[in-house]
Amino acid sequence: MSGKFIVIEGLEGAGKSSVIEVVKQFIESRGHTCICTREPGGTPMAEAIRECVKGDWQEAVAEETELMLMYAARRQLLVNVIHPALERGEWVLGDRHDMSSLAYQGGGRQIPEDKLMALRELCLQGFGPDLTLYLDVEPETGLQRARGRGELDRIERSGLAFFQRTREKYLSLTNESPTAFLIDAMQTMENVHQDVLSTLEANLP
Amino acid sequence: MSGKFIVIEGLEGAGKSSVIEVVKQFIESRGHTCICTREPGGTPMAEAIRECVKGDWQEAVAEETELMLMYAARRQLLVNVIHPALERGEWVLGDRHDMSSLAYQGGGRQIPEDKLMALRELCLQGFGPDLTLYLDVEPETGLQRARGRGELDRIERSGLAFFQRTREKYLSLTNESPTAFLIDAMQTMENVHQDVLSTLEANLP
Repeated sequence: MSGKFIVIEGLEGAGKSSVIEVVKQFIESRGHTCICTREPGGTPMAEAIRECVKGDWQEAVAEETELMLMYAARRQLLVNVIHPALERGEWVLGDRHDMSSLAYQGGGRQIPEDKLMALRELCLQGFGPDLTLYLDVEPETGLQRARGRGELDRIERSGLAFFQRTREKYLSLTNESPTAFLIDAMQTMENVHQDVLSTLEANLP
Repeated sequence: MSGKFIVIEGLEGAGKSSVIEVVKQFIESRGHTCICTREPGGTPMAEAIRECVKGDWQEAVAEETELMLMYAARRQLLVNVIHPALERGEWVLGDRHDMSSLAYQGGGRQIPEDKLMALRELCLQGFGPDLTLYLDVEPETGLQRARGRGELDRIERSGLAFFQRTREKYLSLTNESPTAFLIDAMQTMENVHQDVLSTLEANLP
């Protein structure tokens, strides 16, 4: 018996945190233990890597550096948290996973696909989520919500064009993946949560 | 006009620090500015990554995590320090560079070649040192010297077989590379320094 890995994806301000609460309750209501993770991060070492990648350095951060740090943190989380939990039959609920790298670094930063694929292979070795919910929001709206919560970090200050490219990539990835589902996150929170629950009901029999 | 990139490689306790002093004086005696770097590290962000990779974590460190962190730090150093210095016509003297990853992670940890090559390509994009001095020492001797200096870090505690495989890889890499030279670091320090200087004289006209 093996657990399932559910991932919540989306731009800043898409409403991931409140959706995560809803999904967690759904999982637990079905009698499963639910382990929540966030990326980058989720183990002591991966959280330290997160600090590196999110930091405000007095130097340019090379695209490839950012990418390698993201995948280093992901590998650590995968090996030490996600795989063991799934093997114990527990469910894992991820606040971001690999789709974030494809969307932000691939779409947003426009790092060529072959570079991303080499790191994906090294890190994931074929592993992927059972179900992904992509919370779709216009970048303007998302950033406005995120700004309302306080300071934006280095990546979050990358500019509107960056987030538009990131969203485009999210949309095409969701469209191409049979296990990824789009949730319209421009709706009221109530409607978003209803859509999340009906998507889970329909796809997790 | 472009500077040159000289790298000092070797196991723990091979005597890299004192050789670096000798090489630095050699470079400066020829009228060049000499920038010293160390890997992993050498920029504020790369030093933070070094802390991650050298840290004593209360969790297993996945091989791929270690590898990606090494290359993330290397990319950062290359883009922000090594390339700009060489373009200014300055010389760069590296305490370790890519040969360390090939020897320690490839040889020591036995990470398959294709995984290393993907990261090398992403990080280095064809770049390499003009001259490498590999200080060859038997692991037993090197580790004994290193222990005399104080605590060993996580990687340095990897065991003798690990360092034997690392040395084997260093030897074959040095043998294969036309710009890498072996220095017998089991000799007295005086003789080591003499060999270093005569190798530099002969190969940096």
